[in-house]
Amino acid sequence: MSTVIVPAEVPPVSDDVEQLRKAFEGWGTNEGLIIEILAHRNAEQRRCIRQTYAQTYNEDLLKALDKELTRDFEKIVLLWTYDPLERDAYLANEAVKTGAKSNHVLVEIACTRSSHDLLLARKEYHTRYQKSLEEDVAQYTTGDFRKLIWPLVTSYRYEGEEVNMTLAKSEAKLLHDKITEKCYNDDDFIRVLTTRSKAQINATLNHYKDEFGQEINKDLKADPNDEFLKILRATIKALTYPEKYFEKALRLAINKQGTDEDALTRVVATRAEFDMKTIKEEYKKRSSVSLNEAIAKDTRGDYEDMLLALAGSDDA
Amino acid sequence: MSTVIVPAEVPPVSDDVEQLRKAFEGWGTNEGLIIEILAHRNAEQRRCIRQTYAQTYNEDLLKALDKELTRDFEKIVLLWTYDPLERDAYLANEAVKTGAKSNHVLVEIACTRSSHDLLLARKEYHTRYQKSLEEDVAQYTTGDFRKLIWPLVTSYRYEGEEVNMTLAKSEAKLLHDKITEKCYNDDDFIRVLTTRSKAQINATLNHYKDEFGQEINKDLKADPNDEFLKILRATIKALTYPEKYFEKALRLAINKQGTDEDALTRVVATRAEFDMKTIKEEYKKRSSVSLNEAIAKDTRGDYEDMLLALAGSDDA
Repeated sequence: MSTVIVPAEVPPVSDDVEQLRKAFEGWGTNEGLIIEILAHRNAEQRRCIRQTYAQTYNEDLLKALDKELTRDFEKIVLLWTYDPLERDAYLANEAVKTGAKSNHVLVEIACTRSSHDLLLARKEYHTRYQKSLEEDVAQYTTGDFRKLIWPLVTSYRYEGEEVNMTLAKSEAKLLHDKITEKCYNDDDFIRVLTTRSKAQINATLNHYKDEFGQEINKDLKADPNDEFLKILRATIKALTYPEKYFEKALRLAINKQGTDEDALTRVVATRAEFDMKTIKEEYKKRSSVSLNEAIAKDTRGDYEDMLLALAGSDDA
Repeated sequence: MSTVIVPAEVPPVSDDVEQLRKAFEGWGTNEGLIIEILAHRNAEQRRCIRQTYAQTYNEDLLKALDKELTRDFEKIVLLWTYDPLERDAYLANEAVKTGAKSNHVLVEIACTRSSHDLLLARKEYHTRYQKSLEEDVAQYTTGDFRKLIWPLVTSYRYEGEEVNMTLAKSEAKLLHDKITEKCYNDDDFIRVLTTRSKAQINATLNHYKDEFGQEINKDLKADPNDEFLKILRATIKALTYPEKYFEKALRLAINKQGTDEDALTRVVATRAEFDMKTIKEEYKKRSSVSLNEAIAKDTRGDYEDMLLALAGSDDA
């Protein structure tokens, strides 16, 4: 569930647009007003605001925000203001440009979105960048990472709940065999993770645990610093327990020496309107402080205010 | 352009449905009447006929046809009666089930359809088979064939006409280098063919020809009987000259000792409503007889009549 608080009585779009324009005018920018409006409107309302802003002032709202704001506050306001599919296309493109250290962003987008939303993001990628997501991913990733991430971003998984138990058993054994042989980049190992439906993968991994005694991700920790094993574990977690995946992404971002603002921004901006409530519950369970407390401790200023506005109230 | 001849005055759907029902009744089936109706209705009209037939007789028209007809005539009538996307999903599923000797059907569907139509066929595959096309392809193809065909069926190529000439030059050189080294299954060789837009691949292959003296497909004939080289050449032809690809598919099907009815049926049923006119022109140019003459010489009976009806008149 969403953590975004939309007021019971939303002002007319024209008022929102006028207020935003006012927030940009004069000597200083009124960041508080920007948060008050944008952080409390849902995707459809933000889309109307952008449209009306462009019609009224003949300027893209995102361009105006880009001119007025700076640093982490700018990043989160821009990311949040995007339409979700545009946002995914943008994040994927940034990840491709950043290279290997952003491989996890591609995995996150490919594994936690619905099949349909992933397709729409690929479509949006065509429109924005005049090329396909997969041609960039295939060109700019390398070795085992390419072997995993390329089919992940092109997947269009079946989303029914039906499960083939015979297949789950044989593929659990296959995964276990390959892990035992340390063949983590085996063709079939990757095939199972990149093509099976999430329900089927879940059945396979449940059987894995029953049959071989522990979760597959425990068995994929032979070398905790191996980057490919890390991305395999992230893939599995993102496919089977997206809320836990995001909880961990937030925890690592916050607990990191110096805070990983990019990860914090990305997860809050992409999940606020979807499953942030559950992610916050997971966070509280795992960290014994609420996400809001952790954010308040680690961030400051307008950036902090925007994060907290999107993360909603603490007892939500 | 289509070769299907739809009469200037199409009878009401209810009449078509009633006539079809009559064609099934009594001792013999009236094949001529079936051809007269179905071979002369476009996709939208056939969709209406199926819908009305199901409503009127509480039976799927395809099931009724399946009961009444036999052999090659049955195959072409069923294939033709399908909606194009259903037909692609069905053909892809049949190809997966048949195994290696139908790899070329998967290549044909992946390379000659628009990005959007390929996506819709994948969607239809979910609905019909409760699984994804790519999970079947990845599971049932092997080795180098899997390495090529899996990304082909999951591709969602950019379809703009823009071309990057720098990229075309560097990738033409890459393709040539790999061919010189006989590394036909090289990761990047396959990446270029499976991810770049058709316009970009065309530019790359034009540059290849200018720079290295002959068409890439000539260079991919080192061993004319090598099955992987055959499928690579088919991939390239299907991506860059679909009409020539189909012309050759028809020519091989007809010239084969014994005729390859499956290929003949597939190409005629899938192309009649799209580019059959151009394919026929290519055929005449290459074979010095018209496709209609070749079909009349090689086939007989209702099957022949249906093929000729779909292929349209000879001077079309």
